[in-house]
Amino acid sequence: MDLSDVAATVLQDMQAHLVQGRVADYIPALARVDPRHFGLAIVTCEGETVIAGDADVPFSTQSISKVFTLTMALEKLGAELWKRVGREPSGSAFNSIVQLERERGVPRNPLINAGALVVADTLLEGGPAATIGEIVAFVRRAADDASITIDPEVATSEANTGFRNASLANFLRAEGNLHGAVADVLRVYFNQCALALSCRQLARSALYLASGGVDPLTGTHVTTPMRARRINALMMTSGHYDASGDFAFRVGLPGKSGVGGGILAIAPGRASIAVWSPGLGPQGSSLVGVMALQRLAALTAWSVF
Amino acid sequence: MDLSDVAATVLQDMQAHLVQGRVADYIPALARVDPRHFGLAIVTCEGETVIAGDADVPFSTQSISKVFTLTMALEKLGAELWKRVGREPSGSAFNSIVQLERERGVPRNPLINAGALVVADTLLEGGPAATIGEIVAFVRRAADDASITIDPEVATSEANTGFRNASLANFLRAEGNLHGAVADVLRVYFNQCALALSCRQLARSALYLASGGVDPLTGTHVTTPMRARRINALMMTSGHYDASGDFAFRVGLPGKSGVGGGILAIAPGRASIAVWSPGLGPQGSSLVGVMALQRLAALTAWSVF
Amino acid sequence: MDLSDVAATVLQDMQAHLVQGRVADYIPALARVDPRHFGLAIVTCEGETVIAGDADVPFSTQSISKVFTLTMALEKLGAELWKRVGREPSGSAFNSIVQLERERGVPRNPLINAGALVVADTLLEGGPAATIGEIVAFVRRAADDASITIDPEVATSEANTGFRNASLANFLRAEGNLHGAVADVLRVYFNQCALALSCRQLARSALYLASGGVDPLTGTHVTTPMRARRINALMMTSGHYDASGDFAFRVGLPGKSGVGGGILAIAPGRASIAVWSPGLGPQGSSLVGVMALQRLAALTAWSVF
Amino acid sequence: MDLSDVAATVLQDMQAHLVQGRVADYIPALARVDPRHFGLAIVTCEGETVIAGDADVPFSTQSISKVFTLTMALEKLGAELWKRVGREPSGSAFNSIVQLERERGVPRNPLINAGALVVADTLLEGGPAATIGEIVAFVRRAADDASITIDPEVATSEANTGFRNASLANFLRAEGNLHGAVADVLRVYFNQCALALSCRQLARSALYLASGGVDPLTGTHVTTPMRARRINALMMTSGHYDASGDFAFRVGLPGKSGVGGGILAIAPGRASIAVWSPGLGPQGSSLVGVMALQRLAALTAWSVF
Repeated sequence: MDLSDVAATVLQDMQAHLVQGRVADYIPALARVDPRHFGLAIVTCEGETVIAGDADVPFSTQSISKVFTLTMALEKLGAELWKRVGREPSGSAFNSIVQLERERGVPRNPLINAGALVVADTLLEGGPAATIGEIVAFVRRAADDASITIDPEVATSEANTGFRNASLANFLRAEGNLHGAVADVLRVYFNQCALALSCRQLARSALYLASGGVDPLTGTHVTTPMRARRINALMMTSGHYDASGDFAFRVGLPGKSGVGGGILAIAPGRASIAVWSPGLGPQGSSLVGVMALQRLAALTAWSVF
Repeated sequence: MDLSDVAATVLQDMQAHLVQGRVADYIPALARVDPRHFGLAIVTCEGETVIAGDADVPFSTQSISKVFTLTMALEKLGAELWKRVGREPSGSAFNSIVQLERERGVPRNPLINAGALVVADTLLEGGPAATIGEIVAFVRRAADDASITIDPEVATSEANTGFRNASLANFLRAEGNLHGAVADVLRVYFNQCALALSCRQLARSALYLASGGVDPLTGTHVTTPMRARRINALMMTSGHYDASGDFAFRVGLPGKSGVGGGILAIAPGRASIAVWSPGLGPQGSSLVGVMALQRLAALTAWSVF
Repeated sequence: MDLSDVAATVLQDMQAHLVQGRVADYIPALARVDPRHFGLAIVTCEGETVIAGDADVPFSTQSISKVFTLTMALEKLGAELWKRVGREPSGSAFNSIVQLERERGVPRNPLINAGALVVADTLLEGGPAATIGEIVAFVRRAADDASITIDPEVATSEANTGFRNASLANFLRAEGNLHGAVADVLRVYFNQCALALSCRQLARSALYLASGGVDPLTGTHVTTPMRARRINALMMTSGHYDASGDFAFRVGLPGKSGVGGGILAIAPGRASIAVWSPGLGPQGSSLVGVMALQRLAALTAWSVF
Repeated sequence: MDLSDVAATVLQDMQAHLVQGRVADYIPALARVDPRHFGLAIVTCEGETVIAGDADVPFSTQSISKVFTLTMALEKLGAELWKRVGREPSGSAFNSIVQLERERGVPRNPLINAGALVVADTLLEGGPAATIGEIVAFVRRAADDASITIDPEVATSEANTGFRNASLANFLRAEGNLHGAVADVLRVYFNQCALALSCRQLARSALYLASGGVDPLTGTHVTTPMRARRINALMMTSGHYDASGDFAFRVGLPGKSGVGGGILAIAPGRASIAVWSPGLGPQGSSLVGVMALQRLAALTAWSVF
């Protein structure tokens, strides 16, 4: 089956399942998204792009943005980063503070909220506005698309309701694991979560993770081969909070989900895949998105296992 | 570099590190193992076998045996198994009872002790002696080697000192998630842990996991392709307790460690690998064993990421 | 209001509330107890005994027996006991194992199950049968009543279903905080829980706690004044598991509840009080028993606060 | 022994122990307090005041202020308060956030930090400045001393370093258990902690708790008899965080400690006692302060047990 047939089959098979799950409703900008959206984009290392459904509609990437800031932090700090954040699955919800107390302010991994706050802190050097600019620039360059922006309404709403993240950030600061001001770290974090990308843009922007850290289409160095592999490993063990094991089990690809309903998946050596369906399951990942990736992995035999 | 050179290089590179870590000393049979042992065996899907060091010295497989009983339970129960045990990383130590209380007696995954006790319980039908016989038969058949046995001294010692496992088993029974008698389940578990295999035998016995569930050398069906993939996924996210993320990060292969110093790793589609070095790190995996697999993965580029 | 009027008023006020709560049903001998029973006995330091309702019907004292074994262990070991068990409220359920793992096998206090198992272990010297005999002798002497016995059916049922306690005992043994055999410790514990006392006997047997460690009616030394005070302190902070704060708040007396529906309360310098009503609340204390003691404390102004 | 002899004896017996423990050093105003201070004041229900040592030197009351705001909240809300905060010992450190996550934002009791933040929130009606004014007015009235003030340097320092409390407050807000603005609640809390009282003032201000809610010297109604008893009960089970059981065990009086080195203890029906020694033990209570109260309780036989 060629890739366009895969995408078409997945799109068709998902029709019956749409409107499952519950759209994130903690901010108006997410609550009003139509739950019937479904988008899929596959970008291969050879440069083929296959799309299906609403693959060109931008959505809020939310936690998927952690993959980009993690890449930036590894480029900046290298292994020093691992002094401030672990690389183990947390076994807990995305915003859990329990483990943070038990483990004295060292987040389990950079893909849970607490870890992403530490990552944001490491990028703060020139002040929050500059850091936000650098994150946007990083994603534009990785996606080879200068039109990518942050949704300002989402960023503002996140800031107004982000008490749980403010709790985590203050906790990290109390434990000495934030160096910048709490407000600055939160500002960066809320803005990165508000990055708006379509499936096409998201899959394109993460293609470097499928191809050893280098963008195979432009030749741009994004990160080293070893770091690309390690980011993939982290996505495999920790990319879906307390549903990471289930995703590995069902899909068999490194992935990262966001509460906006998007999921990024990487088939190393083959392709970068983005799927979007706003209805969420109990652990905060797109219900139909996981199904779609499970189907796609079965059709392509791209499981790494 | 061909595989024999890989094995030789790994063996040589590890010489400087031997005698690191601390040999398990909770039972005499493990405590008296010479910490300078190092063995490595690679068996490819094409039937090539490469060994280095003490690859023919049998050691106590301990928790690695959980991979075999999990395979047996999936063949017997299919997806019914997942009603009694989860498939998420635990984020906790191998013998933790905390999560068991929080989650009402459903172990996080079948590769922690509590999960393996439930798996053993599902295999109990004909009584503990019969079940132990079936486990040995399964491993002999998978390894195509009728000489494999259980070390009776280890099994007895485990039973005499296994209070933590007895605590877990009684807890599971109290929550209704053991159906057999506690003593029977423990007897099976202590015996499976006492399975004695050399690196060569261990790598050979798990080759079905590298080749879609079928032994590529004998054609024997061991499990389905999907189950083989899923067992690999579980090893990736949960095969090393609270060091699973680190193993995925450094080695990039599904693996399962045992407190006897052995580690099994699977390179899907390529090979099954067994390494043995008795000195353990703080989380209970072989210190030099992990290093050796990291080196091997770098030399072969077999990381799945 | 004199004490007989207090008892009569409490009895009358409780009529409307009987049959509230749920009788413990984990063993048949408890499950078949009529939930409409209500008994009350007050024995003052001056020797006055006032009863109401079913004050002469024996019931299973269950966890209330921990007060007696604690007294015995303090007499035997003195402050050495506190090396093996703490004296802080646990903030957890009576049979929680979580804190035991976090705190390396040292139970929070001697009035939760894990703590009582350690206490039982300290009394084991002459073997379980001898220890059980000593416990019965202690209670008979404290109650000045040679007819007190253990209900053998309850003891046997406890042993057959006590998997959670077996889990705790094995855990304590694994952490080195049981010195005797697990089976022996459990045998003592299950038997002490099966002590059958009426309200009259129970109140009488604990009178030493209201009068500085000496039985004011016989002059028998049971424990020192300081230890009596400290046992009362422990009952105040920890006598009702995760409802201890509520009991202190509502009743204002040191107390100890049992899953058989009995509650012992001490008014230091004044009286020992026993109440019995089999229906339990969510934390395992007698629902109507707590109400009755709250009413009694209001009528007598015996709250220590 | 009359009370002046008791005070003199305690003062003398403590000399050998002074400079034990470590002065709180998280803010300069506390760090520079001379650890050799020791003060003691006893105010009886009959109006006798006995002091020893530095009983007229003001110190930072810190968490002891929670007793006053709790009284205010109970007067304002009555039993409604218990819908937002529990009354069980927490079994955890004073600033733990773990239980808050497990129990969905309902603090275990009003004497841990999280609980005191909720209490502060209930007092916020007229804005933070008005609330702070009301708290000062309450304490002045209770102490019959218009000179009592807040130390502005301490209040400011608390605000600048109070990340852990900010974490708790944001967490409570995220769970819907703060109604006011996080910044307002924190402002009230940091100011109440900065109340500066001498031992003489502190003992005098809490005399209503020893005498059924009414100031026995002025006749002023502060709270009801039942609420006074219940506040005492809460101090007994929860007044010293995870050392509450130990305090009950050793001293036998309801008490509340503060990180400034002060401890308030109540002998119901007899006296209110304040002690101050800045060196802290591992759980954050004054080391010598607890010793002094243990000695005092032994000399006076005021233990409630």
